[in-house]
Formats: sequence, C-alpha cells, structure tokens
Amino acid sequence: MKKFEKKNRNKLRRIPGRGSYKQKVVHEILDQGFVAHVGFSIDSQPYVIPMAYGRKGNTLYLHGAASSRLINSLKQGIPVCVTVTHLDGIVLARSAFHHSMNYRSVVVFGGAIVVTPEHKERALEIISEHILKDRWQVARKPNPKELKATTVLKINIEEASAKVRTGPPVDEKEDYNMSVWAGVIPVEQVYGTPIPDPQLDPGLLPGVEVRQIYQ
Amino acid sequence: MKKFEKKNRNKLRRIPGRGSYKQKVVHEILDQGFVAHVGFSIDSQPYVIPMAYGRKGNTLYLHGAASSRLINSLKQGIPVCVTVTHLDGIVLARSAFHHSMNYRSVVVFGGAIVVTPEHKERALEIISEHILKDRWQVARKPNPKELKATTVLKINIEEASAKVRTGPPVDEKEDYNMSVWAGVIPVEQVYGTPIPDPQLDPGLLPGVEVRQIYQ
Repeated sequence: MKKFEKKNRNKLRRIPGRGSYKQKVVHEILDQGFVAHVGFSIDSQPYVIPMAYGRKGNTLYLHGAASSRLINSLKQGIPVCVTVTHLDGIVLARSAFHHSMNYRSVVVFGGAIVVTPEHKERALEIISEHILKDRWQVARKPNPKELKATTVLKINIEEASAKVRTGPPVDEKEDYNMSVWAGVIPVEQVYGTPIPDPQLDPGLLPGVEVRQIYQ
Repeated sequence: MKKFEKKNRNKLRRIPGRGSYKQKVVHEILDQGFVAHVGFSIDSQPYVIPMAYGRKGNTLYLHGAASSRLINSLKQGIPVCVTVTHLDGIVLARSAFHHSMNYRSVVVFGGAIVVTPEHKERALEIISEHILKDRWQVARKPNPKELKATTVLKINIEEASAKVRTGPPVDEKEDYNMSVWAGVIPVEQVYGTPIPDPQLDPGLLPGVEVRQIYQ
C-alpha cells in the first residue's frame, strides 16, 4: 500500500497510534469533505480560509476569483497547508481530562501553482464532481468570460498525514466505578430536503445527481 | 452594537456584503462550533490543526498536551489565525460558475499566551462547557498531575470578521429559463443516539447534560 513519506512537516508526534501515512486513508478522508481549511502565511502572518476543493490522485484543486487576495497570494507558490476534518463524535469520559472527540482529519503540505487555461475547465469539473457527482453534466458550462474570472490552483500533495480517533472513552482504571455516564455522542453531517430556488418552475424536480445523495 | 475594527488582516475584500465585523455575529458563530482550525507558521511553513476550543468574551481558549509541538510553538506568542466554519448547504445554480455553498465562518487573529496555573482549571472549564454545557459538574475534575500535563492557551481576539452566505442561487438572467433544477441542498450537523461505553454499568443512563442537546 502506497504511503506518504514521513518527514519533519507531516510527522505525527502526539499519539502517533492514531495516525496514518497511507495514501488510501488520506484520499478517503479528503474525498468525504466539502470544505478544506487552507493555511498560508504572508509576512509571518498566518491566514486560514475555508474553501471548496477537489482531488485527483495526489493533486488538490482550489478555485477562486482571479482578483482575490487569497488566490493571488497562493499562486506565488508559497507553502500551503490544507486541512480537512470530519467530526464524528463527542467522547464523554468519567474524568474531565479524558474527554475527547472522535474525528478523521488530514493535513496536506504542498505549494500551489496556477492551472493553465487549457486545463482549467477540466480542473473545475474535478472540483464540481467532488461536491456533487454528475452535476457538471447538468449545469451550463463556464463561458470564456467566466473562465477568465476564475483562477484554479493545483497543489501537489508533497506530504500528508491522517489522524483518526474512534471508539469509547479511555478512563483511568480507578474512575471506571464512578456513577457517571460515559460514552460517545455521535455527530453526523446529513442532507436536508432540497429547497427549490423560488424562481424555479415548480414542475422541475431535482435530477438524479441530487436524488442519489439521499440513497 | 460593538464591532471589531476593520484592519488590514481582517478586512473582507471578496463580496464584502456577506461579511460582518459585529462582535455578536462573530461570537454566535464561534459558540456554535466544536472544532476550530488553528493556523500558525514556523519558518514560513504554515500549519493548520483542528482543535477544540472555548470562548469567554473576546478570549478564545485552546488546550493541548504540555509536551506537544503545536502547543509549544503557539505559546511563544506567535501570530495565530483561528477559523471556525459551519457548512449550511450546497447551492446548485443553473450555471457551473454560480454554484456555491451556504456557510457561516469566522476568522480570528491574535497571539496566544499561556494561561497561568491559578487560572488553568477555570479555562479548562470554559472549553468543557463550550463542548457540552454542564458536563464539567458531572465529570471528575482534573487532578494536579493532569493539570500539569495540560497547557491552556489564551488568545485575545485582536481582529475578527464573519462571513455568511444564505439563500438560493443567483444565476445570470439569461439562464433562468434553463430546464435545470436549481436550489439548495441543506447540510446539517446532527447528534446520533448516545453510545454507552461498553464498560459502563447498563443501569447508568445519560445525564441531563447529555439529554438536553436532543431537545
């Protein structure tokens, strides 16, 4: 199984037993998220911005307005850290100290480069497909003006690691006989019923690309 | 209504109409989250780490193992950016270009300092209460050894801004007559049924602090 090399940046120091460098694990966690927290630094000042993204192999794609400060900073090729986190549960232990969270997270390190005009539409399709599979075929494709207004960045995943906590709390031996409920409150992200655009013809129903996510 | 001052770091440049500097808006979004993405930079290399947190007034609290690289980097007082994001919906427009997300996010700028031993327990209580109100009174409090193993950091919110998108897609005029379903797929974070620790006495039921979140 392919793994990311363990280097100074991505080496898991705290509770390394929860960590993984396997590409398969990293990819799966990335593929299940909608929002990445993208970190970069300008003159030692860190910024963390939530962004949509897409993945293909070991490449992440981000997009934004060509005029934005964020995109213009990132496209200089400065180091980027992209983190995706899924919260799965609140872990209630008998002791305050052992309270925890169940989660799956990935931290990616790399540098961004601008996707060239000839690959831009394909890169946007990857982001779109990541958010909602098959939607790209249904929506109107970007026209030249829209393509020009959008910059797409490509981040080669140079290093990455995943961290996962699952299961019940782990308490101190002497606390197990306390009369305190302990366990996990699961936390889940779910889809609500689709809300049609008020301007939509009421006869138009959600397409198969929308209906599939409820199955 | 109190506002955060608009400065270079927190000024919203893209679609400023979605932004707010009101302290009330910033606080509410922070209070509804479980995980903050904490960004800092070491030798120009950005790191973004998911962390639990708490808030009191314009102060954020983070905690971690006293021995961790993260905590030891942050406690030097280096600039920190803390971002909290709630995804509320996937916005499906008629055109690929106008697809979007509904979300609420806050970006906070500040520097971390270490909470002194005499205030540490109170700061941990604030984090605990943020995650699950009233749990602190139920759980065993940290003992001196546990307190020593934990470092709590305090971030004064120097600057902050919120950004919120709500509502239906906004398409180009000429696209409104397309035969494509458009609208919002709501995304929500929900609690599942509590899972008792397998080592728990089956007669012990979740306390009121757990039951209240389902009401």
